[in-house]
Amino acid sequence: MTDIEQLLSEIRTFNQERDWDQFHNGKDLAIGLSIEASELLEAFLWKSPDDANIDIIREELADVLNYAFQMADKYQLDIKEIMLDKIRKNAEKYPVERAKGSAKKYNAL
Amino acid sequence: MTDIEQLLSEIRTFNQERDWDQFHNGKDLAIGLSIEASELLEAFLWKSPDDANIDIIREELADVLNYAFQMADKYQLDIKEIMLDKIRKNAEKYPVERAKGSAKKYNAL
Amino acid sequence: MTDIEQLLSEIRTFNQERDWDQFHNGKDLAIGLSIEASELLEAFLWKSPDDANIDIIREELADVLNYAFQMADKYQLDIKEIMLDKIRKNAEKYPVERAKGSAKKYNAL
Amino acid sequence: MTDIEQLLSEIRTFNQERDWDQFHNGKDLAIGLSIEASELLEAFLWKSPDDANIDIIREELADVLNYAFQMADKYQLDIKEIMLDKIRKNAEKYPVERAKGSAKKYNAL
Repeated sequence: MTDIEQLLSEIRTFNQERDWDQFHNGKDLAIGLSIEASELLEAFLWKSPDDANIDIIREELADVLNYAFQMADKYQLDIKEIMLDKIRKNAEKYPVERAKGSAKKYNAL
Repeated sequence: MTDIEQLLSEIRTFNQERDWDQFHNGKDLAIGLSIEASELLEAFLWKSPDDANIDIIREELADVLNYAFQMADKYQLDIKEIMLDKIRKNAEKYPVERAKGSAKKYNAL
Repeated sequence: MTDIEQLLSEIRTFNQERDWDQFHNGKDLAIGLSIEASELLEAFLWKSPDDANIDIIREELADVLNYAFQMADKYQLDIKEIMLDKIRKNAEKYPVERAKGSAKKYNAL
Repeated sequence: MTDIEQLLSEIRTFNQERDWDQFHNGKDLAIGLSIEASELLEAFLWKSPDDANIDIIREELADVLNYAFQMADKYQLDIKEIMLDKIRKNAEKYPVERAKGSAKKYNAL
């Protein structure tokens, strides 16, 4: 079992024990994920990047990942596959020779 | 190399080739993650959960995961460890006997 | 008619002409508002605050306000009243003598 | 003084008394607005639209509006003008004869 499979398995067990799958429709999972991403962002509000509290980052990032893994599981998306596919697509959108050292969006390159 | 390490390695190579680490401070990574979570959520706007387009979910969820992995890497957080820790904490906050079949927040249980 | 009433009236007419009230449940309005706030935030991604494009800020902020006004109208909340109430509450949470010159959250003051 | 001017004036006084303008750069205001929009959205998480708590909606919507007004003030944008302009633009993007009764995005109409 890979690391990702183990994490998915732990999350599934957690939800099954609590009978929570009934609530976990895709729309509310996406809302939950967006809320957790916002709580992570709050660690940086009114601060320079280096002043954010690492313990809060750790907690909130774990929540984001937890929801993202549930979302993948809900739609039977293979996490490794969709991430590698996206990296390949981004490599085409942002070719090294044009994107190097630039923070511009691909359609402004 | 585990699957998570492989994904982190691919993301690191992608960024190094483009010399993008200079832009990737934690605050902007958190902003980027929040924006991608919002784009994922947009797949469900004005729709019942089952009507969302799976191709869009796949793309946007990959973006969310990509940013979340970068954030973990930036702060040298071990993805597997922080996720398992969080599942354990949630198990304490939501004990099976009280949380079973309830969508209430832990402080309302 | 006050300026807020005029804006609400314009928004109502716009929606009635398109028969869109049927879609405008509170949950999707809140999702839409959150997405627009994220699009506004995107104007600042990878940028110092002064480098954001004012035309984009103008457009996206108008979208945010438009959704927020619709939300108020949906729940028959008086915009002026809820805003003034909140300013009063914040004044109690952040008393001048303790909050002056500090960006700390009220529970950390 | 119109309602909007009065609200802006109250917000300005609140911030000046606390010497908070120094923190209120556009980027952090946009982050704050996005976080508040997320807190409003949380009122609907795992719920049907009618089950959200109106007191929470009232509080969080006031926070959203408060930040949106500050953002407008920061960039000297006239709230009434940018909202009316946007309604006019949306009327062109979504002509009545094609948009009536449809929840499709303008580029899918």
